[in-house]
Amino acid sequence: MIIRELRVTPIAFRDPPLLNADGVHQPHVLRAVVELVVDDGRGGEVTGLGECAGHAWQLDWLTLAGAHLAGIHVFDTAAVGRTVRALLAGRADGVDYGTGAPWRRWADRTSPPESRGPAPIPAPAFDVRRVYAAIEVACLDAQGKLSGVPVVDLLGGRVRDAVPYSAYLFYKWKEHPERNGAPAIGDDWGAALDPDGIVAQARRMVDRYGFRSLKLKGGVFPPDEEIAAIHALRAAFPGHPLRIDPNAAWTLQTSLAAVRELEGVLEYLEDPVAGVADMGALAAHTSIPLATNMCVNSLETMRPALDHGAVRIVLADHHYWGGLRGTAALGDVCKAVGWGLSMHSNSHLGISLAAMTHAAAATEDLAYACDTHYPWNAADDVVAPGTLAFTDGAVEVPRGPGLGVELDRAVLDRLHATYLGLGREHRNDKTYLRTVEPDFDPTLPRW
Amino acid sequence: MIIRELRVTPIAFRDPPLLNADGVHQPHVLRAVVELVVDDGRGGEVTGLGECAGHAWQLDWLTLAGAHLAGIHVFDTAAVGRTVRALLAGRADGVDYGTGAPWRRWADRTSPPESRGPAPIPAPAFDVRRVYAAIEVACLDAQGKLSGVPVVDLLGGRVRDAVPYSAYLFYKWKEHPERNGAPAIGDDWGAALDPDGIVAQARRMVDRYGFRSLKLKGGVFPPDEEIAAIHALRAAFPGHPLRIDPNAAWTLQTSLAAVRELEGVLEYLEDPVAGVADMGALAAHTSIPLATNMCVNSLETMRPALDHGAVRIVLADHHYWGGLRGTAALGDVCKAVGWGLSMHSNSHLGISLAAMTHAAAATEDLAYACDTHYPWNAADDVVAPGTLAFTDGAVEVPRGPGLGVELDRAVLDRLHATYLGLGREHRNDKTYLRTVEPDFDPTLPRW
Ligand SMILES: [Mg+2]
Ligand SMILES: [Mg+2]
Repeated sequence: MIIRELRVTPIAFRDPPLLNADGVHQPHVLRAVVELVVDDGRGGEVTGLGECAGHAWQLDWLTLAGAHLAGIHVFDTAAVGRTVRALLAGRADGVDYGTGAPWRRWADRTSPPESRGPAPIPAPAFDVRRVYAAIEVACLDAQGKLSGVPVVDLLGGRVRDAVPYSAYLFYKWKEHPERNGAPAIGDDWGAALDPDGIVAQARRMVDRYGFRSLKLKGGVFPPDEEIAAIHALRAAFPGHPLRIDPNAAWTLQTSLAAVRELEGVLEYLEDPVAGVADMGALAAHTSIPLATNMCVNSLETMRPALDHGAVRIVLADHHYWGGLRGTAALGDVCKAVGWGLSMHSNSHLGISLAAMTHAAAATEDLAYACDTHYPWNAADDVVAPGTLAFTDGAVEVPRGPGLGVELDRAVLDRLHATYLGLGREHRNDKTYLRTVEPDFDPTLPRW
Repeated sequence: MIIRELRVTPIAFRDPPLLNADGVHQPHVLRAVVELVVDDGRGGEVTGLGECAGHAWQLDWLTLAGAHLAGIHVFDTAAVGRTVRALLAGRADGVDYGTGAPWRRWADRTSPPESRGPAPIPAPAFDVRRVYAAIEVACLDAQGKLSGVPVVDLLGGRVRDAVPYSAYLFYKWKEHPERNGAPAIGDDWGAALDPDGIVAQARRMVDRYGFRSLKLKGGVFPPDEEIAAIHALRAAFPGHPLRIDPNAAWTLQTSLAAVRELEGVLEYLEDPVAGVADMGALAAHTSIPLATNMCVNSLETMRPALDHGAVRIVLADHHYWGGLRGTAALGDVCKAVGWGLSMHSNSHLGISLAAMTHAAAATEDLAYACDTHYPWNAADDVVAPGTLAFTDGAVEVPRGPGLGVELDRAVLDRLHATYLGLGREHRNDKTYLRTVEPDFDPTLPRW
């Protein structure tokens, strides 16, 4: 049960032009599939799967770490973590993060608000955790295959058989615009640029997947327009919990006005403002639960949020919280301090959806429907069909060993070829939006 | 990998007359060994071991729960937990706790101090967790045997190869007194009733086991005498970290005076006073870290302690914290809120020592030497010799599958016969002390 090698395959999959506070999603998402090859102790091998973002620095670090895992027992994830940390700690100085990487600014916002200016290069712990997380998932997948049990059972067993997800609603263009002679790329979702468009998108999400909670990615249009979209959703879906996530695009003053318009309407309000001080100041003036994946993104950032009374709900994300065990740990901390737990998502495919589902199924207090981008990208899934499906808005926990999903190698090869063809190394929503709106300024807060 | 049955064997093993705030240890400790028989999926079976206190109610509940575990997958400890909780929740009303059970009063002290009177019957969650913990350890032992990996790896892998323990020093009588015609029962430790006796006991502990940290169980003699013992230890063992645990026998005023005598001398001061309010008040007046296993004994009790600034260190105990995963969860919470982590002990044998060692080896922040009663009871260990030994005060994490220890069935049979011969159902340190000091009053605080 010794690790033989880690294979890292960068891929690119299609993505609609989804708008957010930092710009707009590019036509392709860069991501990586990791395959951890492990001696099964009986003359054969098993392969554990993981998935994470495919920025150049993350691919480099994954590859570097992967080259040093051979020989470690696949159950000893502590040793895997030590190896990854020892190799990567201190390397942040030399990393080219491109000009995108909005999450870095978010991470810095966990510092006191007075230090909210241009980000210094932070300690690399957060980045190292992102690299480790994909490897940890692959270790747990392999452990499950070796032991003949699903990953959820390696995490303590299932507290639910199916994991509810939310409809992740985005303002979006009708199509990726014509560019450098290449034709426009449409999709079958159409435009959503006003309340009617968002309601129509929600209707389709609900009809097709059965989602209950509806989450609007905000921070795109002036707050009044987004608040109008929430009220339109409330009218169209009277029984559905509603959320909005402006990604810290609002000032405290704007947020104070917004919560007066939204009292009694929202399940929770996610990161309207930046930093625990402003979140705490807002929390004192509203009964709406405040949620975050920005000002709390690691165990180390919890105490300041607690001291400021900044949030009532934290969004887990195993990609950021050190894997599936890190997510379980977050659940334990939330129980201890009295916070609710939900789940954050970035653009992802089925390996991550399976991992998210196992993690949520093992975490008792993860009682909010989890976010997922999966409906936007499912057509390019590297997971072979048959195990991941939404029924009444929920994904049944796969019953097979490990994550319970199989790689479709033909799709992997196609997505890898797409990646190579793109020649792109970073995500940059801002620069891409500027091809259409040259004056777009990503500085936050915007309103 | 389905559970077939749980066997519960009550045992009694010899114990010296160790003094504490509630009385004195009786000549035998009541305990239970659980054996979880699991289908190995290949026509055979494996047996997982666990160990816990052997009070009558706990035996009853273990037996009741054990009769309903057959058919559950041994990796699905969440299902095991649900089954145990569903069977036992609400049963506390009918339980005969005897007149001992000091831990119940401690549990109640996690309530505000004004409710420190005679304990109402508390919710049974704490008791259910005690029953579940022994079963969870047996599940993890079986899981490890089925997967061919040590328990520490099922918890995420080892962050240390050996777990340091502390010398657990007790005031003690020379012997159990003659009683009902039975002769006195001596031991080879001798009496320890003053500073010289404690120093001699510590010398033997250090020479024999190599312990570094020295912990004195206090609350037995007037605080001045116990403080003198600490200073005598400091003089005799200049480099050894020192702890004292008065088990809430001191008033706040006495404690405020005591910390002035002990500044700069202690590694930590454990539960000098009862309740988070008084602990917080004391903490504000001393640089000595305050530790507890009394006012924080579950995730639910952490928030009040945090809000009161009551402690800087919590003592884990897998028997109380819902097993080895519950202990890992406590470690995560401590990291998040900035608390240190140590480990509590009651009288136990080698199955529990192995479980404690695996838990501590998997928990990064458990950086204090763990408490253990093992040296006082090792002569009656049910674990076959060869895997558990103290080197330089530490126990090497067993390398074999599961807990890595084997049951010595001849010893188990002997200890079970002893249990049957005793005809005793409860621990009662107070009543036993009254056979010698008829006027002993266990009411706390005493000074
Ligand atoms: Mg968010
Ligand atoms: Mg104690």
